[in-house]
Amino acid sequence: MSNKSIRILSFQIGLAIILTVPVFGDTNPLPSWKEGPSKSAILEFVTKVTKEGSPDYVPSHERIAVFDNDGTLWAEQPMYFQAIFAFDRVKELAPQHPEWKTKEPFASVLKGDVQAALAGGEKALLEMVMATHAGMTTEEFSRTVSDWIGTAKHPKTNRLYTEMVYQPMLELLTYLRSNAFKTFIVSGGGIEFMRPWAERVYGIPSNQVVGSSIKTKYEVRNGKPVLTRLPELNFIDDKAGKPVGINQHIGRRPLMAFGNSDGDFQMLEWTTTGEGPRFGLLVHHTDDEREWAYDRKSHIGHLSRGLDEGAKRGWTIVNMKADWKRVFPFEKP
Amino acid sequence: MSNKSIRILSFQIGLAIILTVPVFGDTNPLPSWKEGPSKSAILEFVTKVTKEGSPDYVPSHERIAVFDNDGTLWAEQPMYFQAIFAFDRVKELAPQHPEWKTKEPFASVLKGDVQAALAGGEKALLEMVMATHAGMTTEEFSRTVSDWIGTAKHPKTNRLYTEMVYQPMLELLTYLRSNAFKTFIVSGGGIEFMRPWAERVYGIPSNQVVGSSIKTKYEVRNGKPVLTRLPELNFIDDKAGKPVGINQHIGRRPLMAFGNSDGDFQMLEWTTTGEGPRFGLLVHHTDDEREWAYDRKSHIGHLSRGLDEGAKRGWTIVNMKADWKRVFPFEKP
Repeated sequence: MSNKSIRILSFQIGLAIILTVPVFGDTNPLPSWKEGPSKSAILEFVTKVTKEGSPDYVPSHERIAVFDNDGTLWAEQPMYFQAIFAFDRVKELAPQHPEWKTKEPFASVLKGDVQAALAGGEKALLEMVMATHAGMTTEEFSRTVSDWIGTAKHPKTNRLYTEMVYQPMLELLTYLRSNAFKTFIVSGGGIEFMRPWAERVYGIPSNQVVGSSIKTKYEVRNGKPVLTRLPELNFIDDKAGKPVGINQHIGRRPLMAFGNSDGDFQMLEWTTTGEGPRFGLLVHHTDDEREWAYDRKSHIGHLSRGLDEGAKRGWTIVNMKADWKRVFPFEKP
Repeated sequence: MSNKSIRILSFQIGLAIILTVPVFGDTNPLPSWKEGPSKSAILEFVTKVTKEGSPDYVPSHERIAVFDNDGTLWAEQPMYFQAIFAFDRVKELAPQHPEWKTKEPFASVLKGDVQAALAGGEKALLEMVMATHAGMTTEEFSRTVSDWIGTAKHPKTNRLYTEMVYQPMLELLTYLRSNAFKTFIVSGGGIEFMRPWAERVYGIPSNQVVGSSIKTKYEVRNGKPVLTRLPELNFIDDKAGKPVGINQHIGRRPLMAFGNSDGDFQMLEWTTTGEGPRFGLLVHHTDDEREWAYDRKSHIGHLSRGLDEGAKRGWTIVNMKADWKRVFPFEKP
């Protein structure tokens, strides 16, 4: 870079600082969060780690924030949205699989009996994921997800699934990025299921999405290179797998971690036991009017250990009903 | 964001465009590249994909450039630097492993007979990597790498390994980033071996480093969470593994790919067969005075298919001797 460009760049940076700081200083960056301990904890933490000269100052390249997806950034009831996608795919692909009419869990899905389909537990779900998420190229799968996410509607709200995201969390993502944080998704959901829409909906680029995956194989088919999705598990990004996924993809311990279930426990534990200032937050689903209320007894989004140990560990526990003015963007503010 | 901040941000962006464009238009962004077809190919490609209104314009979030490391960003002779690191580790750890005195390939390493140690081929090398790269926490390994890279010297030049990087490629990384490209390493080398110094040396953050890896396990030891490195392969990021690694970590087909050996062939193939404008480049090691000259007959950095097919595929083949004014930063410019 020439001296001239360095001088001009410095001028730009200087100008950016002068113009930006007062803007975020004198407005409300989290308008959908009620004043209270949860909001204060976030604002105080971000302020202290970004204030130059503060003993807790953290340089921007270390400002990593990780977010679970299901139940943290978007809803997960009456079941994980990716499971609904898998069910829809089973119905769509059924004509090519006459054997599914009599083979569980597919037969139950085709009869519309979700409970019976899920009775087979994780094994049944995995079988459906493999049957519907593998066997095509990565580009074909990405198009299938994009088509579904652009049209399928939630059974309760009749909204697109991408509208079932939490307004306070969208504001939080924007607020952190405006403070030079890099925001990542670290989800038990499929990495290739989230990427086609994560940038548009959350502002999170594909290389900052970490998730569960199946194996892929590179091959040249009729002169055209493709990545084929294989019916073989590659990685489960859940529980103790989350710190492993973080290390593999991010390569640095996060400064802040956000989750909602015991599947996020190890991610918060790994994050908040790092040296220096760290921040952990769990969204507690307590609002059965605007959203759903569930925790210890729920299979989906099971939250028990986090409630027992979170406060002792200094984690912020968000009471969705009390702390959020608005849950979904489509609600009147 | 308030209207006020949007207005101010727009003003900033407008200002940045006004100030930045002429700067890169009227200076020489690649001073260590001689004028000629290689340099022109790079400049023309970047100009056409970044010029708004151009039929080849590519929005900034799709500007992904991937770089092999060994032989592309830094040297790889007389052998991969990570192999030298492994040998040094074997010597360091020998007192704790009396059995190595009689066990190959360790015995040969301890006698200083590199050729005999390498006679066991990939299996021997892998055995040494597992013995020296596993069994500690990720943080301990990172410190070991940092200590080594900060002190060990190259056997021929007596320079730090991080000085054995290619000045023209450093300029290229900076040039691409100044044009809103995201730059990634996609290397057969160990992901955890590169991360401790990639940001400082190349300006590439840890989450933009893709490489080979062993498995890690999350556990809480005496109340302290750690990630332990296991002597078990996780992923080999080489040849057909490179597009797989790109998909796993980046989730988007790159716009530009840079390599130097047939281990990079599939990465360049995957990149350059994407739709729209794409760019592939191979560094051909032709300079046995300033660096080394090797290609078809070399085991390290073997380049044969790339030379046979590269030109037909529209890839730029850099003749290091002819195209680079300077190879290493420590040479007089």
